Amino acid sequence: MKTAPLDPALPLLAAILLRDSCGCAECRDSASGQRLRSITELPADVSVTEARAVGDSVEVIFGPDGHRAVFSRAWLAEQRVPAEDDRTEDAKRLWTARDVAAGLPGQSWPRYLAGDADRESCLAALLRDGFFLLKDVPCRPGTVLAVAGSMGYVRETNYGRLFDVRVEATPANLAYTGLPIAPHTDNPYRDPVPTVQLLHCLATAVEGGDSGLVDGFLAAARLRAGDPSAFEILTRTPVTFAYRDATAELRAARPMIGVDPRGRIREIRFNSRSMQPPRPGRDGSPEQTAAFYAAYRAFAEMISRPDLMLTFRLAPGDCVVFDNTRVLHARTGFSASGRRHLQGCYADLDGAASTLAVLRRARAGAR
Amino acid sequence: MKTAPLDPALPLLAAILLRDSCGCAECRDSASGQRLRSITELPADVSVTEARAVGDSVEVIFGPDGHRAVFSRAWLAEQRVPAEDDRTEDAKRLWTARDVAAGLPGQSWPRYLAGDADRESCLAALLRDGFFLLKDVPCRPGTVLAVAGSMGYVRETNYGRLFDVRVEATPANLAYTGLPIAPHTDNPYRDPVPTVQLLHCLATAVEGGDSGLVDGFLAAARLRAGDPSAFEILTRTPVTFAYRDATAELRAARPMIGVDPRGRIREIRFNSRSMQPPRPGRDGSPEQTAAFYAAYRAFAEMISRPDLMLTFRLAPGDCVVFDNTRVLHARTGFSASGRRHLQGCYADLDGAASTLAVLRRARAGAR
Repeated sequence: MKTAPLDPALPLLAAILLRDSCGCAECRDSASGQRLRSITELPADVSVTEARAVGDSVEVIFGPDGHRAVFSRAWLAEQRVPAEDDRTEDAKRLWTARDVAAGLPGQSWPRYLAGDADRESCLAALLRDGFFLLKDVPCRPGTVLAVAGSMGYVRETNYGRLFDVRVEATPANLAYTGLPIAPHTDNPYRDPVPTVQLLHCLATAVEGGDSGLVDGFLAAARLRAGDPSAFEILTRTPVTFAYRDATAELRAARPMIGVDPRGRIREIRFNSRSMQPPRPGRDGSPEQTAAFYAAYRAFAEMISRPDLMLTFRLAPGDCVVFDNTRVLHARTGFSASGRRHLQGCYADLDGAASTLAVLRRARAGAR
Repeated sequence: MKTAPLDPALPLLAAILLRDSCGCAECRDSASGQRLRSITELPADVSVTEARAVGDSVEVIFGPDGHRAVFSRAWLAEQRVPAEDDRTEDAKRLWTARDVAAGLPGQSWPRYLAGDADRESCLAALLRDGFFLLKDVPCRPGTVLAVAGSMGYVRETNYGRLFDVRVEATPANLAYTGLPIAPHTDNPYRDPVPTVQLLHCLATAVEGGDSGLVDGFLAAARLRAGDPSAFEILTRTPVTFAYRDATAELRAARPMIGVDPRGRIREIRFNSRSMQPPRPGRDGSPEQTAAFYAAYRAFAEMISRPDLMLTFRLAPGDCVVFDNTRVLHARTGFSASGRRHLQGCYADLDGAASTLAVLRRARAGAR
């Protein structure tokens, strides 16, 4: 096997990877590009018996069956770059309040609608910074669904396709009062949790009701730096979150800090209102529970640090869109007599990422 | 502190857990039951200074602030039972084909609609066995959405609120051909992945097109028993799944076998059509890649074992509902000239679990 002079990527690649990646008409459906051969149909003792350069490609012959594959040099080069999981901290730009306060990422709704480049930059901000702000969204009830539909798909829940956030006479949720609400992620009692939240301001109170956003990935990364054992406890302890009203009963058990198999921060669930006390069971000890609570307190204190919280005031027509697996949101209290009305809905990051990828593809094609 | 004679659970519970669980009007909103005090507002040096029995409750006084809480004995007893994560293998009944072939869990649609007990047993089967089968669902297009709506909420995707599975002239997906399809989970390139799938049969081919279901949790558990290092590799290696057509470009990187922080099986992603070859990058080695492929092959062989696959034939009016994070589905090939038409849609387990919990609550209340 003489591969080194052929292509620098070839020696890095296992024979089975190359065989499984063959794009010939026997191995892939020509219309959809989908694989026609499952791994169990490929020989377990596959090897590369021959490789030679053919123009901009490399031709490979496999043993034991003599199958032939052709790989472009562009594809081979790609294999030298490890695949990214664009949901972990490594793919994000982490921020403190000061980093973003000078100019929130976002755009006016008419420009966002009219311009692919403006839409692209907003969606890129959602994935990179965890949020963006749209201005001049018409203050008509239901418009938040159009905003969600512009980037992906609404996630309907027991709260409906959209929900109203305003003071109610008999609130089933503290959101529907004038009370201040500390930074939290929404619906941690749901699995899968909604990964995007939108809040559209239709009217504001005379005083109070300001909004706050905290980068939960940054808070978790700082906790890891300052108190690694607390971070470790929060990644390893499933916490039960629960919600119950007349028509719903939801419950999910997940760690407050979700990490990928390599330990990178990937998902935050934090909500003191719906968190259930950890039941120690017969095997647990008060010391274990106390250690969990100390870690939880350390994370809560990190999240509450004023330098982490970006504060701003939603004006009528503003719509904030944020990554609910990363960015915690909060509000200050307001007088129940003042009128404040938001409409919110949920959506998902995968749809937004797909819309962004298609916009980028169109731009690349237009060049 | 004299707690032992008061309640057997009390010595198990850390003071901070008790303080955080206080249900008094200062600590909890009386209308919603939600917590009003965040962990950072509670004293870090909390202790129990006094505890005494008061009828069916235990009264606790805390230091240093003298706060008073009352806990029912029923609540204290609950704390001795560890919280369950009902999504892991521990909460499931794992099955081979023989275990379920004699009588598939399910019901006729009219009975499911009419009877709470019948609906409850179907939803319980979805959560416990990973699937159920409805009969006599009217063969009108769109009815699958009513089935999804009866248990939760439709998850709309780029395929629409519902999708048609039938032979197409220019298929963007092998699903829309007459080719056989090996066991797989749907949409592994989406994150969050749809956790429930429904397939409603409107018409069947003359021959072929039979359905198969495999319990992926059982397959993973058997892999762990027989080849622990392969299992370990598949839980630790993020695999990129991708899908691309004219209007969508989706990509997610997750392990094939997702486990909770305690290592329990929680989520399967398996789809040879959309799986991308693992890019080794500059730091990877062909040996690592080959070890991953060997583990993948071992899992694929386990999934293909005939004793694991439940096979059955969907008749017009049948609708199968399954947990897409656990149960893999497959179909045999069929002649493209024969008419076969399914309609499918996605939904989520959290909505189904909520519907089930509310049904159980109503039954408990009716007793």
